Amino acid sequence: MRTIDWVDDAVEIVDQTALPGETRILRLSTVDELVEAVRRLAVRGAPAIGVAGAFGVALAARQFAGDGDGLAAAVDRVRTARPTAVNLARCVQRVADRLPGGPDAALEEALRIRDEEIDSAERMARLGADLVTSLCGERPRLLTHCNSGALATVTGGTALAVAFELHRRGALAGMVASETRPLLQGARLTAWELGRAGIPYRVAVDGAGPFLMARGEVDAVILGADRICANGDVVNKVGTYAHALGARAAGIPFLVVAPESTVDLDTPSGDAVDIEDRGAAEVMSFQGVASVPEGADAVNPAFDVTPHSLVTAIVTDRRVIRLDEGEALGRYEPVGRRVGP
Amino acid sequence: MRTIDWVDDAVEIVDQTALPGETRILRLSTVDELVEAVRRLAVRGAPAIGVAGAFGVALAARQFAGDGDGLAAAVDRVRTARPTAVNLARCVQRVADRLPGGPDAALEEALRIRDEEIDSAERMARLGADLVTSLCGERPRLLTHCNSGALATVTGGTALAVAFELHRRGALAGMVASETRPLLQGARLTAWELGRAGIPYRVAVDGAGPFLMARGEVDAVILGADRICANGDVVNKVGTYAHALGARAAGIPFLVVAPESTVDLDTPSGDAVDIEDRGAAEVMSFQGVASVPEGADAVNPAFDVTPHSLVTAIVTDRRVIRLDEGEALGRYEPVGRRVGP
Repeated sequence: MRTIDWVDDAVEIVDQTALPGETRILRLSTVDELVEAVRRLAVRGAPAIGVAGAFGVALAARQFAGDGDGLAAAVDRVRTARPTAVNLARCVQRVADRLPGGPDAALEEALRIRDEEIDSAERMARLGADLVTSLCGERPRLLTHCNSGALATVTGGTALAVAFELHRRGALAGMVASETRPLLQGARLTAWELGRAGIPYRVAVDGAGPFLMARGEVDAVILGADRICANGDVVNKVGTYAHALGARAAGIPFLVVAPESTVDLDTPSGDAVDIEDRGAAEVMSFQGVASVPEGADAVNPAFDVTPHSLVTAIVTDRRVIRLDEGEALGRYEPVGRRVGP
Repeated sequence: MRTIDWVDDAVEIVDQTALPGETRILRLSTVDELVEAVRRLAVRGAPAIGVAGAFGVALAARQFAGDGDGLAAAVDRVRTARPTAVNLARCVQRVADRLPGGPDAALEEALRIRDEEIDSAERMARLGADLVTSLCGERPRLLTHCNSGALATVTGGTALAVAFELHRRGALAGMVASETRPLLQGARLTAWELGRAGIPYRVAVDGAGPFLMARGEVDAVILGADRICANGDVVNKVGTYAHALGARAAGIPFLVVAPESTVDLDTPSGDAVDIEDRGAAEVMSFQGVASVPEGADAVNPAFDVTPHSLVTAIVTDRRVIRLDEGEALGRYEPVGRRVGP
């Protein structure tokens, strides 16, 4: 199953707000429908949002054919649907650059981005699994935060793809999935994916992770990223930083798995990232049930910044950067790569 | 309003599971009713649980008058209703020691414990407010976790009593209340108490606290304790340790406020404390709404241990212990105290 795909001239997504209760496929055939789906997190996770952005521009090319101003405005709406993940702006730009070639050229580029994401998930899984085994030995117990599985990408996932690969190799004892308030991506989505894969797991409240590490119940933390800055700072779901502090205090590896498309060398550090505040409503209710006093306010940063000094290693689809050994990100330069098309 | 009191030969409590929607008074006239109320957290917070235990023994003395074995078993049920807070066992013992004098002697001791808790909340408020002002200057912004207000004691509170006192002095800018999953004591109870007191506050998910500190939005963390060990280790609601790591990383004070009755010099360190696991059901649903896949398991430590090295100061009803300046707990020895009755 693909989390997001292009099917019969429209975008189809698994509506993640309905999981795990219901596997609902949404068909998005206009730019506005797609932007709305991204905003309300029906599709989420940096790589999946990037593919959604690419398809959004492909939709716009068809919807606004011959209307240059309308097309430009639509592309802008897609680009700014969410502010934090660099993948969105980057994928939108790649497809927008092909718009002069017409709708089919745009779609072709969007499909290429989709295929690259599928390919990159497989590469991350292998690189990450090798690293985990080398750092933690046989059958470690891993903790993950938020959802970085197939639902955050097109198939496979980022950090969770590593867990799937370790499980295939018989080299994973089990997982702790932190529930990830306020939207419970861990309890709803990661638990659902781990259960389907047959991996033993326990859900924990977000505040418990560092204590479970201190108590010796976790061998490494492994999670995704919404943006990786030039200095190695990691922008990811709120709660990531607290888990990084816990890992450091417990002396266990803190591993970040994300495709090269998440690395943003134009952002020098986490200080430069616009952290989306998603408003009080998400915090103040639980699956629609009001729980706090009327009139209460909330602060709701959707992401936080983990300083590079707390990160053991970053695993991308192309390389492993050992920040703990002094390696820096730099620009990925494949050996012998072709220049030009 | 008192959270717990003795009224017309029975124990009356505010049912904290119904707040903030409803202020429901429960009347408990048997030992079993009282134990059940403690277990399901209708009454919670270390000092309030201590008073509940004291009243529980007073109830037992009446219910099992003339039945020595029944009385001993009932006292044991009260003592073991919850395992972590030392106040419960200690208050139960104080009243049990008076049982040879009959039911009235037992009740007299229980009422004395209640009055001592009321008195101690006032003392903690003053000592704590003085300390916060000296450490943070005028009008700081404080973060608290779980509920340490009037609802955790008889009146006033522990850490939250300090906030109330600062507010009365015009010396508090506002509070962040972390929601405190799984049972939301922060979002439900602390928010309710802060709103009633007219203190500006914002609720945050538990994973956001350390990031808010790193972003400079919090001047100190202040919270209660369920047990303070001889070496200064603090056992408190799960999530406390993660907030302590955040405070240390941000270089802001981490303050623990609890009565002397919470200090347990017989427990050398946090390693020796039985941490209650309250089971999967609390984590797996939100106010009764199922949210995770069927068959999912959870790990649910109700408390965690914050090592003394992360604690700036402990404020009791009698003294301020500056752990950051090398002070140790020791036994509280009032100057000129009378020996014997």
